[in-house]
Amino acid sequence: MLATIAEPDNGGGDVVILDQTKLPRETVFVTLKTLADAAHAIRVMQVRGAPLIGATAAYGVALGLREGLTLERIIAMLAATRPTAVNLRWALSRMQSALALGRDAWDEARAIAREDAEANAAIGRHGLEILKPVAATKGRVEVMTHCNAGWLATVAHGTAISPIYAAHDADLKVHVWVSETRPRNQGQLTAWELAQAGIPHTFIADNAAGLLMMQGKVDCVIVGADRIAANGDTANKVGTYLKALAARAHGVPFYVAAPVSTIDFACPDGTHIPIEERSAEEFGDLHTPVANPAFDVTPAALIAGIITEHGIVPADQLARVKP
Amino acid sequence: MLATIAEPDNGGGDVVILDQTKLPRETVFVTLKTLADAAHAIRVMQVRGAPLIGATAAYGVALGLREGLTLERIIAMLAATRPTAVNLRWALSRMQSALALGRDAWDEARAIAREDAEANAAIGRHGLEILKPVAATKGRVEVMTHCNAGWLATVAHGTAISPIYAAHDADLKVHVWVSETRPRNQGQLTAWELAQAGIPHTFIADNAAGLLMMQGKVDCVIVGADRIAANGDTANKVGTYLKALAARAHGVPFYVAAPVSTIDFACPDGTHIPIEERSAEEFGDLHTPVANPAFDVTPAALIAGIITEHGIVPADQLARVKP
Repeated sequence: MLATIAEPDNGGGDVVILDQTKLPRETVFVTLKTLADAAHAIRVMQVRGAPLIGATAAYGVALGLREGLTLERIIAMLAATRPTAVNLRWALSRMQSALALGRDAWDEARAIAREDAEANAAIGRHGLEILKPVAATKGRVEVMTHCNAGWLATVAHGTAISPIYAAHDADLKVHVWVSETRPRNQGQLTAWELAQAGIPHTFIADNAAGLLMMQGKVDCVIVGADRIAANGDTANKVGTYLKALAARAHGVPFYVAAPVSTIDFACPDGTHIPIEERSAEEFGDLHTPVANPAFDVTPAALIAGIITEHGIVPADQLARVKP
Repeated sequence: MLATIAEPDNGGGDVVILDQTKLPRETVFVTLKTLADAAHAIRVMQVRGAPLIGATAAYGVALGLREGLTLERIIAMLAATRPTAVNLRWALSRMQSALALGRDAWDEARAIAREDAEANAAIGRHGLEILKPVAATKGRVEVMTHCNAGWLATVAHGTAISPIYAAHDADLKVHVWVSETRPRNQGQLTAWELAQAGIPHTFIADNAAGLLMMQGKVDCVIVGADRIAANGDTANKVGTYLKALAARAHGVPFYVAAPVSTIDFACPDGTHIPIEERSAEEFGDLHTPVANPAFDVTPAALIAGIITEHGIVPADQLARVKP
């Protein structure tokens, strides 16, 4: 089984990541030996997905300390890599607290990674309860997702795709509408993951989501999240909001799946979430002015529930799961 | 000035089209000598855009008759090229009527082409009246469009872009948000057109439309149409509906610009419009199951008005412009 992030058995004390910029065409692993390696991997999206960004940042702290860098400099460098996913800041903050208590950086990074995998497995179990009644009634369940929030976006299991894996393991007939997710085409990562697991799926243009919902071909939408504000407004990969609007127009329940570490209780609402603007080069060589916001914000009112490791919580009642 | 479709001055009796599958990288013209050439050009989208498909089909009839083919066979071959754009059927029906009255096929095809250009110029004048008050209040106007409904989609002037050209000619400050339009990227055609005309524009992923409207960066949306049902439901390039939903959510007026020939008065509502399914190859070599509907349907209730050559008509009052 491939892993998105792992420590090799050779005891070298490095960190090995699966280079997601090469997938699905090539399976290439990259060894992170320094803080700069970790920061680069996050920035260029060799690792991506809010939970995996968090875990990589945690290991990045351990790598930086091994180099003898100051914690202040390490935190500043990692925090500057990507602005929207709050798991990055959350992981850095947790590492700081642990180090202040005298804990070992490597042990804490390992704990963050292990807990992410456990949280995502729990998200799968809770999310499965949404899919079961649909499958029981219709004999099958049609899920639409956006971007990649599968195991590739996490340490293991995934967030939005975790309930789909749980459904497949429970022998439910599940089919997934996989959205291309321009401009970086993370839908290809999702299609690759699902193919590896033998889960039926169909790849679509992002543009097709409204038509499919109008045609009654979608039972529910499940997406991941990069940052959830305290009021439930959710930043996720750009295009998520359009799917939420279409879901609302057609009575299709729209769920967000994320560990509690993705909730930014210090952020009152979506207007306070910074939206990362990425390079025009993500569209190739266009010779035209480009705007490339990487995320958008889906208002809490459009969200049927947040699937967390502690259960499914109404988007406007996140205080229930505040640590 | 380039033309999408024209008869060369050499008197050879052929038809020359601009090959839009090569744009914006190369400017290549293709000579249509036979009915098969015309049908191929429509099918593979060397010509595209509902009005231009109609004009090309009209010339295709003239080419087929010159080959000595029966009108029945000619109509059948052209009608089978693409199912959604009603201008194709409209042009074939008009050619049949004209021929039944003893008119010359070439003269009728020229009349269809000339009238398309005139209708689109009138659409520009009427649409300009929507943009003027915004520009007067704000000093500038931000228009979002989808796909390409510029002069490339018509014989001249364009439909959705015609009001933008009119605004530019009237020295209004206009900026256009150009949506990529996956999977065929017709937004690149729109960006190319606008660059040639010196009109400021920004290229975006289709996914970004909702965020930009939420951020208040869009004053109105204008799109073209492939078929408008009698009740105002409008089929246009897939992804249009998502923009209409976002526009509604943010109080942004959403207009459809189309000549009356795009209205199918025999089609009661959007559920009766056939949606063309195109090849998975439009996404490249993905090795994954693909669904590729080329159009979606925007309900009349989301449309602020249909900009026709006879003025701006409420979507639910199309009988006013019935010929």
